[in-house]
Order: sequence, then structure tokens, then C-alpha cells
Amino acid sequence: MITAVIDETHAPDRTSWVPGADGHADFPIQNLPLGVFSREGESPRGGIAIGNSIVDLAALTRSGLLEGEAMAAASAASAPALNAMLALGAGPRRALRRRVSALLSAGAHERESIAPMLVPASEAAMHLPAHVGDYTDFYVGIHHATNIGSIFRPDNPLLPNYKHVPIGYHGRASTIRPSGAPLIRPQGQTRAPDAAAPSFGPVRRLDYELELGVWLARGNDLGAPIPIAEASDHVAGLTLLNDWSARDVQAWEYQPLGPFLAKNFLTTVSPWIVTMEALAPFRRAQPPRPEGDPQPLPYLWDEADQREGALSLELEVFLSSAAMREKHIAPLRLSRGPASNMYWTVAQMVAHHASNGCQMQTGDLLGSGTISGPQDGSQGSLMEITRSGKQPVTLPTGETRTFLEDGDELMLAGHFRTEGAVSIGFGECRGVVMPARI
Amino acid sequence: MITAVIDETHAPDRTSWVPGADGHADFPIQNLPLGVFSREGESPRGGIAIGNSIVDLAALTRSGLLEGEAMAAASAASAPALNAMLALGAGPRRALRRRVSALLSAGAHERESIAPMLVPASEAAMHLPAHVGDYTDFYVGIHHATNIGSIFRPDNPLLPNYKHVPIGYHGRASTIRPSGAPLIRPQGQTRAPDAAAPSFGPVRRLDYELELGVWLARGNDLGAPIPIAEASDHVAGLTLLNDWSARDVQAWEYQPLGPFLAKNFLTTVSPWIVTMEALAPFRRAQPPRPEGDPQPLPYLWDEADQREGALSLELEVFLSSAAMREKHIAPLRLSRGPASNMYWTVAQMVAHHASNGCQMQTGDLLGSGTISGPQDGSQGSLMEITRSGKQPVTLPTGETRTFLEDGDELMLAGHFRTEGAVSIGFGECRGVVMPARI
Repeated sequence: MITAVIDETHAPDRTSWVPGADGHADFPIQNLPLGVFSREGESPRGGIAIGNSIVDLAALTRSGLLEGEAMAAASAASAPALNAMLALGAGPRRALRRRVSALLSAGAHERESIAPMLVPASEAAMHLPAHVGDYTDFYVGIHHATNIGSIFRPDNPLLPNYKHVPIGYHGRASTIRPSGAPLIRPQGQTRAPDAAAPSFGPVRRLDYELELGVWLARGNDLGAPIPIAEASDHVAGLTLLNDWSARDVQAWEYQPLGPFLAKNFLTTVSPWIVTMEALAPFRRAQPPRPEGDPQPLPYLWDEADQREGALSLELEVFLSSAAMREKHIAPLRLSRGPASNMYWTVAQMVAHHASNGCQMQTGDLLGSGTISGPQDGSQGSLMEITRSGKQPVTLPTGETRTFLEDGDELMLAGHFRTEGAVSIGFGECRGVVMPARI
Repeated sequence: MITAVIDETHAPDRTSWVPGADGHADFPIQNLPLGVFSREGESPRGGIAIGNSIVDLAALTRSGLLEGEAMAAASAASAPALNAMLALGAGPRRALRRRVSALLSAGAHERESIAPMLVPASEAAMHLPAHVGDYTDFYVGIHHATNIGSIFRPDNPLLPNYKHVPIGYHGRASTIRPSGAPLIRPQGQTRAPDAAAPSFGPVRRLDYELELGVWLARGNDLGAPIPIAEASDHVAGLTLLNDWSARDVQAWEYQPLGPFLAKNFLTTVSPWIVTMEALAPFRRAQPPRPEGDPQPLPYLWDEADQREGALSLELEVFLSSAAMREKHIAPLRLSRGPASNMYWTVAQMVAHHASNGCQMQTGDLLGSGTISGPQDGSQGSLMEITRSGKQPVTLPTGETRTFLEDGDELMLAGHFRTEGAVSIGFGECRGVVMPARI
């Protein structure tokens, strides 16, 4: 495993000449996340976020200001998807980061040359940062698994495999969209508990799930597992991920093969990849396993991963109804909690996934599964917050919610914070619920 | 729904000048399936199987013998994957079929021009016919669902949703390979029934699943379902599919989110797409639902689909151990049965999948799930044949099998047969089990 390298790009006293970058909640100069953007009438291409602007990487390659690995990374990123750039691995990614950090630093003498390459974020449409080959959703949020399990099995919420196996399942790649894509309320086959027969129509129990997304940089050959000590090297970075869910469809369809149409109508990600390099200052020791929990099998255990496989990351969810927006009432925070509620690390997810020789590829996306805390106010889905619809949430307008209503806007947020480092964030991950098309 | 069109390309008395085509078990002139092949040192490109030869579609486009829609289809097929060709839909596909059928017919005066474009199949490596965007596996073999269910729930084998919902789940696209790819025995985490803790190592209960694969020609926009009456128009054709499975991994991992590493180490398909056009004479009425079974909801019901949504198709599985091959003993047939054991039609699978607005794309692959018959000799997996390993199969060498051993070769076969039509088949779908890499 690559030990997190903290260098001058993370220096808390490094500031930027780009207006709005210093003090930006998500994108100060210490972040420099990777994405794909376009302006109207132009082709999508790679960019790096800085404050409220985007550095156009295609323009940067033509500037004469890059060379070597940094140039190779920027050239590969001058495409409508970052797959070729991610496939280069950590070296070129880090070289580009260091160079761009220097070019954007306060006092950089290249300022005059770079300024024309900055695109206002307000003028840019964001795209998925990479083409997703396969998408897998895990279930590593142990409090979510416990909360959901206790709805169905009060005496035995966690299944016997949970603390041995990073449980996961395959999701749908074709319906992953960047922040802002509307959520059209799906229709589906459901069966109410008291109904004699199922029916088909707009789903009623529409929910979100607060998750972390993992973008893979490099894959493996079919049949060749990824050892856990190397797993982090295969990761490009992280994102926020909303696994929109139809609970009524899920309850009726999921036996015996798992969730299907309840989950594949839309998955929203924040469009910026916060790179493993940017995360270095925020890595911390995975919390010790509770007394009595089993020791993971050797293929899932790496001491270095335990020392720095967790993250100083706070996750939040906000809801805003149409009426709230009309009255200019600020969104209501539904939850707030640390990502340390992940029972398995990202490296454990990757190593488990490839342990049978399954081929992973550049651009694959992994979801963590819903990240909930153990107590009220930290739960990552309405299913948990409202106790399966039994305890409604009251909004500032007096409206109540058990599940999402048409017009609701749901926003995820995530910020990395630790002492001695400048905080960074993912940017926006939001979607508005639109009425079903019937 | 497009009603099956039977034209001169299906005429039983149509013969071909290509040696070995007439009477070929899979590829007489009435079939003309689509695939992607390459010869050593050459780029993969589209081809059409005829007897033991392949018509090189790239060469055919340069011949001056095509025009209009047929030319458009062949041009689009002159690529390493047929996605662009499939996306053209049924019209160009049928135009190319009719033209190629005429060119290959006995007495065609273009024979001298076409002969140099024939590649011996023995010199060609076959590739996947299309890039797979997403892969979904269904569970429509009702006897398989009953057989497997009865192992776990003898009194109640079929779950309450089975006859209402075409159950399916997402699979892994990156590990789909054409016939002939070796199966490296995967390692996995398992827990023996009597063990205190799980362990990791080569899987012991390695199995196959006999399935039908469905290649999609056209997709839909996100949020726009595919009505069942139009579902067949979205299908390009069919293939054989082997959903290799590790039963010991499956038993330990699958709760609560379904199969994952038990299934994603390899999926083998026969490399030729037998098109919807070729299948026309073999379409037949879906067997009536047993007395007392529920009427499907309207979004899953189409009278035309019921009239011709089933297939006159016989499926077989053969096993050959290393010792059998060494002694030149013919493969042992493990099962034989009709595809009419599918409780849901292909159109119902497609319509259900897109019913929530899930976006389908050209090149998506759907598996039917294991197709088993109700009686011994017609079961599509060793799990069923050996009653979960309790009743071994004896091979001609005296060897016995409960699950697959290293060196075993597993072959699927499928042939469409009906009175008044020339039989056609899928060609080979095979794989040899190689030892685990430990």
C-alpha cells in the first residue's frame, strides 16, 4: 500500500491567486479534484476545480507550461472521459497535481498565462468524470445494516456473514448520472402488506441513501486477484453517491436475488473525483473492531490499511421541499455523521471484490453502501430516520415527510476536516424529484 | 410487437454452395448468425457463420455487391464490436440477411466473388459480438427456481413474488467471455456447515448454469419505459450463456443482497448472435399458465407475445473429464430439455427491466436464469442434478462428480427444431476448468 504522502500541495499556508479559492468550502487549492466539464457548444473535457472556477486541462496542455508526467496526465485528461488519465496511475496524477498547485499558488508568475484557462463553474455543465464499466454497491455501513436489519429481524439484525464478508452486489452502470440530474419518480410493481395482489404504478416509498463512491484508477487481469496491500494503488479517488431507492419495490422484489428495479432507475454522484493525493492529510486509523468481533481473514487484512484506511470525513444530508424553496427557507439538515461508521475500508472492498479473480477496470465505480451513525440525527436514509415511515420528519414549513415527495430536492455533502489541514469537500450531489410519467 | 416474418431466407429447400453448409447442425444457410472474429495478426471484425466458414463482412463491404440498408449494416459491422450495427435495428439487419442469403445460395452467380471472402472457422478466433454495457441475469426457469428453492425450503420452494415478478439481478459485465475461455477455479470465502469460522481458498462446489442469453439491439432513454408490445423490437437475438457458479461462496455471501463473488468470476457465451430474423420459424405460443396461476399485470402482458413469445428450442449440456478426453470417450450428456420451461418470455424480461425507466443500451446482455425441466435428465445445473452434492453423477470412466473438477470440460448446446423448417443452432459454448492459482 502507498503510504499517504503529505507534501507542499497540502500546506495549510498555501493560498491561491484565483478569486474565491481561499476559504472555499470544497475547492481550496489543497483539493484540486478531477472532473469533466463542458461549456455550451463545446466538447466535454477534463478540468480541475479551484474555488468557483475550473482549470481547462485541454487548454493547459497547449500552454507550454507542462512537461513530463504532468503533461502526459493533462493530455490524457483532454478527453470526454478521464479513463485514459486514471489508467496512468498515481505518478502522473500526482505530478499534475503538484504542477497545477504551483501554477495556482499565490505569487505564481504564470498567473497571467493561466487566468484565460479558468472557466467559471457557473458556465460549465458537469459530466460523469469517467465512463463506468461496472458499478458495485457494498454494504459496509454497519449501523445502516443494523438499522435496516432490525426493522426485519429485531432480535438478530446483523446476519452471520456481516463481520466476515464485505457484502456487496452488482448495480446498474447505465443509470449513473452527475449531480443535478432530475429523478423521475419511477413506476414499479409493489404489493402492499394488506393487499391480495400486487399492483403497478408510481412508487410511494421513494428514498435516498447517503454513500461514498470509489473511482478505480487501475484494474487487474481476469483471474488475478488484487492483494490487499496493493488495493489502495488501484483507487483514483472518492465521490459522494446517492443510491436512490424505492423501498416498496425493494420489499416485494428482493427475495431471493437482491435489489434490482428498486435501485437501478438512477444513481447520482458528485461530479468531482477527490483524489487519493488530496485525501492524504485526512487518512486516519480504522477504529478498532469491537471486543469479540472476528479477526478478518488474511486476504482482507493489512496493517498499513488499518493504520490509515479510515477518513476524517463528515457527511451530511439536506432536504428542501418545493414550498421551502419558494419561501426561501434554508434546506433542512436530515443527518450528519462521520464516515468512520464504515466497518470495512475501501482497500478491503477492492481486495474482496477481486479476490475471486473478478476483473476490475479503470473507471469502475464502487459504492460504500449507506453510511449511518448509531444514533438519531446521523442516519443516511429516510427508511431509518422515519423508522420505515412510522415517524415522520417535520419540515420548517410544517410539511411532513416519511419518504420523498415530488418537488423535494435532496442534497448530500461531505467535508474532510482534521487539525492542521485545510478542509476540502466533494462539491454538490443533488437531485430534484419529478412526478412520475404516467 | 413485430410479428415473426418468414421469408425465402427460411425456405427449407434453400441450399448453399458453401461446402459443409447444407446439413450443418448449427449454421446452415437458414441461420446466418452474427459474430466478431479475427485471424492471427488481423483486427477483429464482423462476420456471418455459414457451415464451417465465416463471411468476412469488412471484405463484403468492399465487394460492390451490397447496397442500401444491407451495405449500411455490413459497414457498421466492420468493427471490433457489433454495437453500431445492432443499433441500426431490424430493418438493416434483415436487409443484410436477405442479401447474404441470396449470395450464398446454390446457383448464385456471385459465387466466384464471394468465395475469397470466406474465412475457415478453424483459422478464426472468436470475440464477444458486442461490447456489453450492462449484464442482467434473470430467474425465469421455473423448475430451476423450484428445484433450488426446495433444497432450502422443501414445503414452500417458490417465493410469493415469483409468479408476479420476472425476478432478476445485476451481474458483472467485465467478466463475460466467448466460448473457449478457460475457467480458472476461483478462490473465495466460504463457511462449511460444521465450521466455527469461515475460511478462504479454492472453491469446492463449482457449478455451471445452462441459460439463454439475450442481446439487445436498441435501448431507451432514461425514464422512458419500453412497452411490452415493443419489447421484441429491442432484441437483436439470442445466445447460449453459462453462468458459472461457486455454490459454497453463494451460500455464505448471498444474504441479504444476492449473489456476488459466487457468479462474477466468469460468464461464458456462445459467440454467435442467432438473430430474431433467423428464429422466426421457431417461435410458438407460450404454454398456458397452470390453472390458478395469477394473470400478469398489464405492463407484462401482450397477446401477440403470448402467441409467439416461446421457442421450439432444445437445450443440452455435456461434460467431458480430462480422463475421458485422454481415452477418446465421447462427452457425457448431463441434461436435455426444452426452453419452454421459461415462465416469462424474453419480451416480458425486457419490459419489466425498463418498466421503472431504467435505461437499456445497445449491447446489453440479459441472461434467462437456469433453464431446467421438471424431471431428472433435464436439469440445468449440477446443484440440481446431484441434489446439492448428495447424489453423484458417474462418468463413463467410472469417475464420479458432485461438482466440477479441474480438467473438466463443460459444453452447452442449443438447437431450434420445428416441423417444416431446417434446424439451426448456436454453435459452441464451452470451457475447461483450470486449477486455482494459489
